[in-house]
Amino acid sequence: MENVDHIGIAVKDLDARITYYTNVLGMKLLNVEEVQSEQVRVAFLDGGNTHIELLEPLSEESAIYKHIEKRGEGIHHIALNVIGIEAEMERMASEGARLLSDQPKPGAGGAKVAFVHPKSSFGVLYELVDRS
Amino acid sequence: MENVDHIGIAVKDLDARITYYTNVLGMKLLNVEEVQSEQVRVAFLDGGNTHIELLEPLSEESAIYKHIEKRGEGIHHIALNVIGIEAEMERMASEGARLLSDQPKPGAGGAKVAFVHPKSSFGVLYELVDRS
Repeated sequence: MENVDHIGIAVKDLDARITYYTNVLGMKLLNVEEVQSEQVRVAFLDGGNTHIELLEPLSEESAIYKHIEKRGEGIHHIALNVIGIEAEMERMASEGARLLSDQPKPGAGGAKVAFVHPKSSFGVLYELVDRS
Repeated sequence: MENVDHIGIAVKDLDARITYYTNVLGMKLLNVEEVQSEQVRVAFLDGGNTHIELLEPLSEESAIYKHIEKRGEGIHHIALNVIGIEAEMERMASEGARLLSDQPKPGAGGAKVAFVHPKSSFGVLYELVDRS
């Protein structure tokens, strides 16, 4: 892996949380977008060396909705930049990691993404992001 | 805030998790140390643009032990670099943030640290770290 691409945080009310992150934590808001396929509205904030992604569910079908129901608002995933995601997925699987898909999926901004099951990463949901 | 100093992750078995982070996720181990005052043994890994801190409890008195009992292994906190932590704590409190102490405490590596209550940050435990 190269870098931490972003830290994803599940929130109930995106606009109110953006106000907290910009006014209290002092982060700059970069952009807000809806990802219909994931049923989320997301905001990216500038954390200096990495980004913070706030995710608000758009419906009860969203994985973020289920996360909030089960565990409350809070940190949802850590995204790691990789180069050559297919080979990296294969290497990780051969080392015992359990990936949530066999092939990468299209992510925001033209990236290719894949997830490692949190049971395989000891409670942390890792997203792999290939922007190369 | 300046940067994300590190992401803290609660683990049950530090040595086994270090093996996963280095072999499977491909991060370089930087150092391992015991922090007796917090009753934890910690490992820092190089995440490229930030660090990953794995924290294993040394006793049932450790906050990390309680976190694992309640929520299982997983992400525990996000640490943000600040400059001038006393002024920053005062500013954040005046904006409505609830800090866990009135004054910063000594942290690892000669830093001054303070925590924001997760209820005040919508489920995320933020640590402020002043290394200036």
